[in-house]
Amino acid sequence: MQARHLGVIDIGGTKTLIGVANPDRVIVHVERLATAPESGPQDLVRRVVETFNAIADRLGFAGPPEAVGVSVPGPLNRAQGVVHFTGNLGWRDYPLAKELSDALGGVPVSIDDDGNCAGLGEARFGAGRGYEDQVYLTISTGIGAAIIVNGRVHHGHQDLAGEVGHLTIVPDGPPCSCGNFGCLEALSSGTAIARAASQAVLQDRSAYLSSCGRSPTAEDVVAGAVNGDVVCREILSRAAKHLGVALANVVHVLNPQAVVVGGGVMAAADLILPVAEAEMDRHLFVVQRGRVVLKPAALGSMSGLWGALCLVTDETTSS
Amino acid sequence: MQARHLGVIDIGGTKTLIGVANPDRVIVHVERLATAPESGPQDLVRRVVETFNAIADRLGFAGPPEAVGVSVPGPLNRAQGVVHFTGNLGWRDYPLAKELSDALGGVPVSIDDDGNCAGLGEARFGAGRGYEDQVYLTISTGIGAAIIVNGRVHHGHQDLAGEVGHLTIVPDGPPCSCGNFGCLEALSSGTAIARAASQAVLQDRSAYLSSCGRSPTAEDVVAGAVNGDVVCREILSRAAKHLGVALANVVHVLNPQAVVVGGGVMAAADLILPVAEAEMDRHLFVVQRGRVVLKPAALGSMSGLWGALCLVTDETTSS
Repeated sequence: MQARHLGVIDIGGTKTLIGVANPDRVIVHVERLATAPESGPQDLVRRVVETFNAIADRLGFAGPPEAVGVSVPGPLNRAQGVVHFTGNLGWRDYPLAKELSDALGGVPVSIDDDGNCAGLGEARFGAGRGYEDQVYLTISTGIGAAIIVNGRVHHGHQDLAGEVGHLTIVPDGPPCSCGNFGCLEALSSGTAIARAASQAVLQDRSAYLSSCGRSPTAEDVVAGAVNGDVVCREILSRAAKHLGVALANVVHVLNPQAVVVGGGVMAAADLILPVAEAEMDRHLFVVQRGRVVLKPAALGSMSGLWGALCLVTDETTSS
Repeated sequence: MQARHLGVIDIGGTKTLIGVANPDRVIVHVERLATAPESGPQDLVRRVVETFNAIADRLGFAGPPEAVGVSVPGPLNRAQGVVHFTGNLGWRDYPLAKELSDALGGVPVSIDDDGNCAGLGEARFGAGRGYEDQVYLTISTGIGAAIIVNGRVHHGHQDLAGEVGHLTIVPDGPPCSCGNFGCLEALSSGTAIARAASQAVLQDRSAYLSSCGRSPTAEDVVAGAVNGDVVCREILSRAAKHLGVALANVVHVLNPQAVVVGGGVMAAADLILPVAEAEMDRHLFVVQRGRVVLKPAALGSMSGLWGALCLVTDETTSS
């Protein structure tokens, strides 16, 4: 039988990307669906199947994909294919792999979390190429990560490795969505940056942010900083310093060759990474300075899809 | 040729253990040498060779060991067999493996740092048996660690993985020997515990510690705590809470099955580990609580020797 096309999906809090890779394992088409929390996972599965059918019709593929890899936000059980929980979508213990497989006529479906998928995509095809040991961080609404050891994603015994967003950076610091206090995610995520911006508006400290005419977002802060607004730069700089401490902690545990940072907030990578790197170096041994490469992600919004592709093409991803 | 005996060495700041394992790879004899910083590494190598000869004579082994594994304090380069630095002994870039090999007539010598060796010993023969993914911490004068992934020590690209003692726990906290501030080692090591005890003596807060008649040591604090001294218990409890935060951070990165804690301070394991575990759990996700086994080391002062044995018997230790 001839090799068929492969399906790749990146489920997000507000949008889902659906793509196909040709038999040469190159992603050749991507569609975008709005992800509506209120409609539930069954509805998303139904729309995914419709989209795969429409793509196959258009590109002349016969039948459903040969296999499907899915990037999912939130903790999950890979072996069972169950998504335990997604903060933004409100799913609870949903057997996504089985439901999607059944709806596609029995094709194999592999799932992994969005941090691991994006990290795997960057490691195989993006900024992390060539590094056996690396850490990937994504900073957007939350903070996710992938730990890559000997070229493979390290999942941990409960599939919970790489929760770098929940390292405690400031004891008894601001509250985090996980119930703890002072986590990196509560200090340096897009949500934390937006919260700091709202405080600046309340205190009327930034003409730029006040002029947004609504609650400022992390994107507003990034735009303001790029435009030279001092308060926006301060906010990003503070987030970057906490990020640097977290990076140093991860480097002290793993001594990786490289750290790759992606996610929406990295639109301001030029402002954030140098500050984070200086703070990281301040917390490392002298012999480590300059020996751990820190670089921005290279695959933009496609990193999760490229990682999802690895889930169904790569026998070496799990540990 | 018949299999010969193997040599194992655990070099410490004040003493060095020298042992031999029989051809069945069981450690059957251990000698102890005082380690004198002022006499330098050449003198230690000379005394090690004399000790191996004396043991061979006594036990009827012919010739030197077939191979020698060495546990060394401080950063090193395994491939080159060079010890970069040892805080207590004052060595600098000493080619230990080559020098010892030459002095023993060319037998192969493998070296690794003391945290990795003790962790490997515990993982193969002690409290960590049966766990593929685990973290070992040793808390004595300093704090060392071993990261074990898929049953193998993860060394990192500069042999600097597992520096858990230098995780930043309290930003701008007390100064650490590494030049940074607020590291775990500056908060929870034997040295930090002794420093807190000295402060208590200056403030005349503990009759027990004041009665020691000299600068109190971590052993004094452990003894006082076991005897019910409230201030000693407070000091250990504070060290244990910082330890718990560090453990949670490591668990968030690696999601291991188990964490094993050894070292001299663990003489008070019953007082320290429950406090550390409660604090660790407070910083973990609910689903992780009780799912990461926290236990004291089981091999006492022999863990480093058993790990050194693995260096010369085990093809799977490096990564």
